[in-house]
Amino acid sequence: MRVSQLCEVSGVPLPSIKYYLREGLLPAGERTSATQAIYDESHVERLRLIRALLEVGGLSVATAQRVLAAIDSPDLPLSHIFGVAQYAVSDAALYEEVDATSPGLAHVDATIERMGWSVTDENPGRHGAARILDTYSALGQTALSTISPEYAQAAELVAAADLAAVARSTETADMAETVVVGTVLGDGLLASLRRIAQENLAHQNWAQPRSEK
Amino acid sequence: MRVSQLCEVSGVPLPSIKYYLREGLLPAGERTSATQAIYDESHVERLRLIRALLEVGGLSVATAQRVLAAIDSPDLPLSHIFGVAQYAVSDAALYEEVDATSPGLAHVDATIERMGWSVTDENPGRHGAARILDTYSALGQTALSTISPEYAQAAELVAAADLAAVARSTETADMAETVVVGTVLGDGLLASLRRIAQENLAHQNWAQPRSEK
Repeated sequence: MRVSQLCEVSGVPLPSIKYYLREGLLPAGERTSATQAIYDESHVERLRLIRALLEVGGLSVATAQRVLAAIDSPDLPLSHIFGVAQYAVSDAALYEEVDATSPGLAHVDATIERMGWSVTDENPGRHGAARILDTYSALGQTALSTISPEYAQAAELVAAADLAAVARSTETADMAETVVVGTVLGDGLLASLRRIAQENLAHQNWAQPRSEK
Repeated sequence: MRVSQLCEVSGVPLPSIKYYLREGLLPAGERTSATQAIYDESHVERLRLIRALLEVGGLSVATAQRVLAAIDSPDLPLSHIFGVAQYAVSDAALYEEVDATSPGLAHVDATIERMGWSVTDENPGRHGAARILDTYSALGQTALSTISPEYAQAAELVAAADLAAVARSTETADMAETVVVGTVLGDGLLASLRRIAQENLAHQNWAQPRSEK
């Protein structure tokens, strides 16, 4: 199909398609003349993926470039793709490296050991979790300043489900794509479900005004 | 203390303090003359909270205003504070209302029913989760397009820990503050632990290049 049809079929505006081509997010079509190229179903699918990463996942174009490049590199092991996807969705200030003397970091490492987990020092979650614990402590929120067994267990449950989904995906989609999409969007799914479960419990427990307590 | 000392003790630059005063995030000090006011420890603590919400939680000033106003309203029940905090950290496009005919929404509601949860239609998580499921489906990611029992269970575990932390906080901090801080920063803590648990499992499972499989 021509680029005008790709635009119509995908519902993505032409200026965006041209921008994605220029930035290398969307592979070039097959040239049929100096000014024309043809596109196929793979381009329609890639456009869907690009829009999902940018609009639902909230990635920047530069970050989407990195994760798409990882998907397109068949020599990268899946564990590496996981790493790229993790870093890609972890470029917020939250995940920047904390000081090695951070008390939060020591607590995170103790949790990692207690759970029997093995991770590299650079794992963005290690620094993000440490930063949040240090913030809780600074605020005097001692009730929050340790990682509860429930949080650690929830993380393990979810990570196991994430990997199981990747293993199941072989027939329906590229595993690397499942890794990227699931990593990018899974945070939002979990945060969403947390809001639902919190509201349910909060209504059960705290219906009356605080001043009447 | 004078505003210059407040600046020194808190480590927050003077222009920021003046901005927070102007925007109503920080309560005014006690006026001692037409041009001077004195501040106390409560201002130092409030500044810590403001910085945590803005810098670690990533809230906008307008959003921080809303959650601080909720903390400062003793007549609001804690369940309402939870609601305000949830909406405050859910103003991203992810949580906007989805169409009532969304297949993802039907699946989310089925999960809510299966879990025995009770929530309002406006819960931002209900729409966020539906949007993500619809995105997975559009991408052909059938392995991801349902809510796994593990995700639902993880959300319940975490929400129960969140409420337990609030119940424990009575002696050490204002409960409303714990609700807000835990809601705003808890997403980041959970996402961080998910990255750690994922890396641990990914290394165990997928160390070799994909092209050798």
